[in-house]
Amino acid sequence: MKMWYTEKHTPNLNYSLKVKKWIHKEKSKFQEADIFDSYEFGRVLLLDGLVMLTEKDEFVYHEMITHIPLFSHSNPENILIIGGGDGGTVREVLKHKTIKKVTLVEIDKLVIDLSKKYLPFTANRLDDSKVEICIEDGIKYIAKHKNEFDVIIIDSTDPIGPAIGLFEAPFLKNVHKSLKPDGIMVAQCGPPFLHLEIVKNVYEIIKPIYQIVRFYTAFIPTYPTGFWSFAFASKKYDPIKDFRPKRYKNYDLRLKYYNNEIHKGTFALPNFIKNGLV
Amino acid sequence: MKMWYTEKHTPNLNYSLKVKKWIHKEKSKFQEADIFDSYEFGRVLLLDGLVMLTEKDEFVYHEMITHIPLFSHSNPENILIIGGGDGGTVREVLKHKTIKKVTLVEIDKLVIDLSKKYLPFTANRLDDSKVEICIEDGIKYIAKHKNEFDVIIIDSTDPIGPAIGLFEAPFLKNVHKSLKPDGIMVAQCGPPFLHLEIVKNVYEIIKPIYQIVRFYTAFIPTYPTGFWSFAFASKKYDPIKDFRPKRYKNYDLRLKYYNNEIHKGTFALPNFIKNGLV
Repeated sequence: MKMWYTEKHTPNLNYSLKVKKWIHKEKSKFQEADIFDSYEFGRVLLLDGLVMLTEKDEFVYHEMITHIPLFSHSNPENILIIGGGDGGTVREVLKHKTIKKVTLVEIDKLVIDLSKKYLPFTANRLDDSKVEICIEDGIKYIAKHKNEFDVIIIDSTDPIGPAIGLFEAPFLKNVHKSLKPDGIMVAQCGPPFLHLEIVKNVYEIIKPIYQIVRFYTAFIPTYPTGFWSFAFASKKYDPIKDFRPKRYKNYDLRLKYYNNEIHKGTFALPNFIKNGLV
Repeated sequence: MKMWYTEKHTPNLNYSLKVKKWIHKEKSKFQEADIFDSYEFGRVLLLDGLVMLTEKDEFVYHEMITHIPLFSHSNPENILIIGGGDGGTVREVLKHKTIKKVTLVEIDKLVIDLSKKYLPFTANRLDDSKVEICIEDGIKYIAKHKNEFDVIIIDSTDPIGPAIGLFEAPFLKNVHKSLKPDGIMVAQCGPPFLHLEIVKNVYEIIKPIYQIVRFYTAFIPTYPTGFWSFAFASKKYDPIKDFRPKRYKNYDLRLKYYNNEIHKGTFALPNFIKNGLV
């Protein structure tokens, strides 16, 4: 029997991976999680039937959501990750020698448990002594913390289901308050070719409250259209003018996507995005 | 009845578009052409069952294969396009006021005939007085022309079927001879995440014969993985150092992807490509 998994990127666009082996299915009170092995991209994590990550291409998303803000900050020590229960962002953050503490706030313990069991390539640093895991709604967590973090990374699912509040003004304004006076926030903002309205909405919320607001993009094969956007919002550091790559020359980064040229080039936006941000 | 068109991006990865209406199917001695209307991307052209272009996203490919070389050259007058029978590259080339002549060498007259009839959004400038169309094998054409063109654009199908010779040394060396002493060549080089060997092969052929060899990328939703590569080879002009965007400020370019920042940012290559080019 040949088994295929199909994700509807839109009602009129199907994306199908040939399944080698179905590994696990489990439902929490927040969402349904599936893990399977695909022929094309290795192990796959689905949440509510959407690809969250695959073994073969997760490096792009995790490198880009992490190293763009962390290499833009002069001394990132205290990092907050909202979402990110698979551990891929924690793994990248811990490559920075300045880090003293990483707090991961994941609403769904199931994601962490399954990742530790089935996704060792992303979850392998979740037990590091610098990492504190809080099983809590990021919206409630952020309201209790002020002036505390150097970098906040919003590593969420798309703005449907449990993550919807992470794309709205009350949460994003509290993120600003939780950052130190030189803090940086980054948030994944979906596929701009299909859903430019997500980018526009986030832009309108964060533009008035930060010194510097930019968007950047990355190519992620298994996400809809293969093209993803991220919001970058900073109280002090400009991601290009204040970028000091020499400081990191001794890091053992083992990067497959991010590099100095990508750091600068990623902020070049196609007109169809740029023209939406006015 | 619901009809879907499925392209196998790999044997283990299917990409399916819901079909609104099948328009035309016809076979030449070179390949089979299909045209249909999709719900997601408007009108679609297939050659041998592979998506060549769609109405909604063709702008990315045609802008990026054209304006990167043309805006890197100080005075592009005489342009050669190998392939490109749909007319999209001709349309973009003619936006440059310096152009005196565009020669389109397409092996398959069927592509031009169908494009003129069914793809007016790309083919609308094929009858321009500056355009000369030659129905001929690009490999034979290029062998007869020396020291003639400012820019040569290799707008081919993938290296299977009739285009295979366009990725091989004899053809690419003749392209170099057909360029003037300050000429520039650009060639589409496929999806680097799936077929880095195409990029590597072209790199090894052109690296020893040009002053400047760079690769650049663009996001194209309907192509495999959504991420495409292009080879840039130049006898004199550096695409970034010699880029003079101010010269074009009065152009009516109507661009949806390309801009000054993209021109520079597109040459930033992810490590997984960069590390293959050594």
